[in-house]
Amino acid sequence: MSDAQKNAGFEVKAEHLEDMARGAAFLGAGGGGDPYIGAMTALHAVRTYGAPRCISGEELGDDDPVFIAAMMGAPSVMVEKLTGIEEVETAISALERQTGRKAKAIMPAEIGGLNALTPVAIAAKRGLPLLDADGMGRAFPELQMVTFAVHGVSTSPLAVGNEHGEYQVINARDNKASENSARRLVIEMGASVGISCYPMLGSDAKRSAVRGTLSLARGIGEAIARGRREGDPFETLMSYLRSTDYYNQCGVLFSGKVVDLERKTEGGFTLGACKIISNEDDGRELEVIFQNEYLRARCGDETLAIVPDLTCILDAESAEPITTETLRYGQRVKVMGVSCAPVMRSKAALELFGPQAFGLDEPFKPIEELIAVG
Amino acid sequence: MSDAQKNAGFEVKAEHLEDMARGAAFLGAGGGGDPYIGAMTALHAVRTYGAPRCISGEELGDDDPVFIAAMMGAPSVMVEKLTGIEEVETAISALERQTGRKAKAIMPAEIGGLNALTPVAIAAKRGLPLLDADGMGRAFPELQMVTFAVHGVSTSPLAVGNEHGEYQVINARDNKASENSARRLVIEMGASVGISCYPMLGSDAKRSAVRGTLSLARGIGEAIARGRREGDPFETLMSYLRSTDYYNQCGVLFSGKVVDLERKTEGGFTLGACKIISNEDDGRELEVIFQNEYLRARCGDETLAIVPDLTCILDAESAEPITTETLRYGQRVKVMGVSCAPVMRSKAALELFGPQAFGLDEPFKPIEELIAVG
Repeated sequence: MSDAQKNAGFEVKAEHLEDMARGAAFLGAGGGGDPYIGAMTALHAVRTYGAPRCISGEELGDDDPVFIAAMMGAPSVMVEKLTGIEEVETAISALERQTGRKAKAIMPAEIGGLNALTPVAIAAKRGLPLLDADGMGRAFPELQMVTFAVHGVSTSPLAVGNEHGEYQVINARDNKASENSARRLVIEMGASVGISCYPMLGSDAKRSAVRGTLSLARGIGEAIARGRREGDPFETLMSYLRSTDYYNQCGVLFSGKVVDLERKTEGGFTLGACKIISNEDDGRELEVIFQNEYLRARCGDETLAIVPDLTCILDAESAEPITTETLRYGQRVKVMGVSCAPVMRSKAALELFGPQAFGLDEPFKPIEELIAVG
Repeated sequence: MSDAQKNAGFEVKAEHLEDMARGAAFLGAGGGGDPYIGAMTALHAVRTYGAPRCISGEELGDDDPVFIAAMMGAPSVMVEKLTGIEEVETAISALERQTGRKAKAIMPAEIGGLNALTPVAIAAKRGLPLLDADGMGRAFPELQMVTFAVHGVSTSPLAVGNEHGEYQVINARDNKASENSARRLVIEMGASVGISCYPMLGSDAKRSAVRGTLSLARGIGEAIARGRREGDPFETLMSYLRSTDYYNQCGVLFSGKVVDLERKTEGGFTLGACKIISNEDDGRELEVIFQNEYLRARCGDETLAIVPDLTCILDAESAEPITTETLRYGQRVKVMGVSCAPVMRSKAALELFGPQAFGLDEPFKPIEELIAVG
């Protein structure tokens, strides 16, 4: 059993939130929302309602209804508009009424600075446990890009809520249709909304979720913080990642400066690409493209990391994860490639969120085949 | 008590459906869907499940949940796409789940060839009574244009369903926002969908609905049929209308031939105008404009009938009501103006569905002030 799994089952206290948000932002691979907003939202809730317990699947009954809590929208907009938990509460309550089930546990859909921490706030407010798991062990831009879907759980019914108490519940014919409807609602209802979807029982969550990912986010955040105190956050981070079950194939792909950045908000997504010029004065450039999350890092014709493996951009000094919306011209960064959970690399999984699902014309290759890891 | 009210409380048998659909199409004032489709849908259900009972408000408990059953969409599309009752069943079931209430009675939202008869089919299938009432005693194009709204009943939550079992439940901040969301769903989910909205208890329905309108539709249809046998359907129709509580101010505005017809389907509505040239060889022309329903009849600068009063176009010989989608170039027609229910002419009512609500720049004037009625 890994260190991460030993951590399962803990109270998410106020003092854990900053590390957890930082680690979640790292796993968010550029997406999943802003960790500062995530930490603030969770902190307020934990102080007001008390610390929720983060539990492993073993503590969850097979028939216990599990409800997803997430924010959905273009990350650029979520930064401008401080999000509370009312949107998500509205969505969960609507979905509870529609399914006739009452939540017994809350789970994130994805791990990211906002989307791993919003569920902490909801669990605290509801006095419910938080399941130490999610649907990808990273972040992805579209609703159907989750292991729940790989394992046959339906997105629908799903509920979307906003800060005015407005909600819409959708039952669509397939998961992609759900994504299309929900994406339109994001634009219609306020550019960032609360969402609850993939209504599950405990047994569904246990067979379909990526486990231990909230503990892992916390562990990653703690490793970076420890490294800053000890002198090299990248060394402690890499050392921690190598000790985990999922993220153990990793390496620094590139060190340099952001010299080009194109970013637009379109169809509810933050889309774009950046160019990073090497520190080595050798003229080498790395291109990283993104759709909410970083999708691929490429140097010339050579792909160095590609979805669903994680491409992460971090501040070159502090190893603070940089999201697609906080990336700035002139930043000095290190780009890392990290293996995703093995369940995310199956054939069925790659159909949902491999390179082709993002319109990239090249096959998935694991990070350990693309670079020297270790 | 009028003849119509004495009719309240009857079994809606197979032999009533054709008359009821024809009368409903008359009251639909050009909208409310095709009576042939409405009658066929109801006939199939009544034969399969038995005749539902049409009850007056007195037979309904104050706490009995009443559910609206309707089709929504551009009438032109509903003609091309044979509608079943699955769309509406899907919507009602979704709304039942969302409200946590189980329907004890079914009610039409409006009276029209399809929208008065679809509820008959649903009531038959569910084995529930049909409330002899609706939200306008005619048809209107938009969801908020009902006496329910005039009396403060909220459109939301509302549910929309299609023939694939897909549904969406909406809780919007006000009734106009609900209409906008639902209208978009109509376009997205298939151009004609089933809808249930204005969830009510018996007490709400009793204080806010226009009563006796299903009986009245049946009475109107029977009067036209009787007139055809006796020689003059317009005479029997007018005579029946004069005996009713609501529709007693009426008259033939114009007799002539359709010489011009503009019609387009836009934003989920059937929009347009027609010109009718007089039979009298005096060059007079009547212009009738419509948005799903006929809104205004005008001869030169003189308005002869205007919403919410009914403008109805009928076949000149058979007095068969002609809907906005079956109106054709060259048809010989009579155009009638008919008073709406008094509750539809209040100041609050006119704000929701008077001329200004349709962008018409003239005040409402009752039909009895515009033409010689009687």
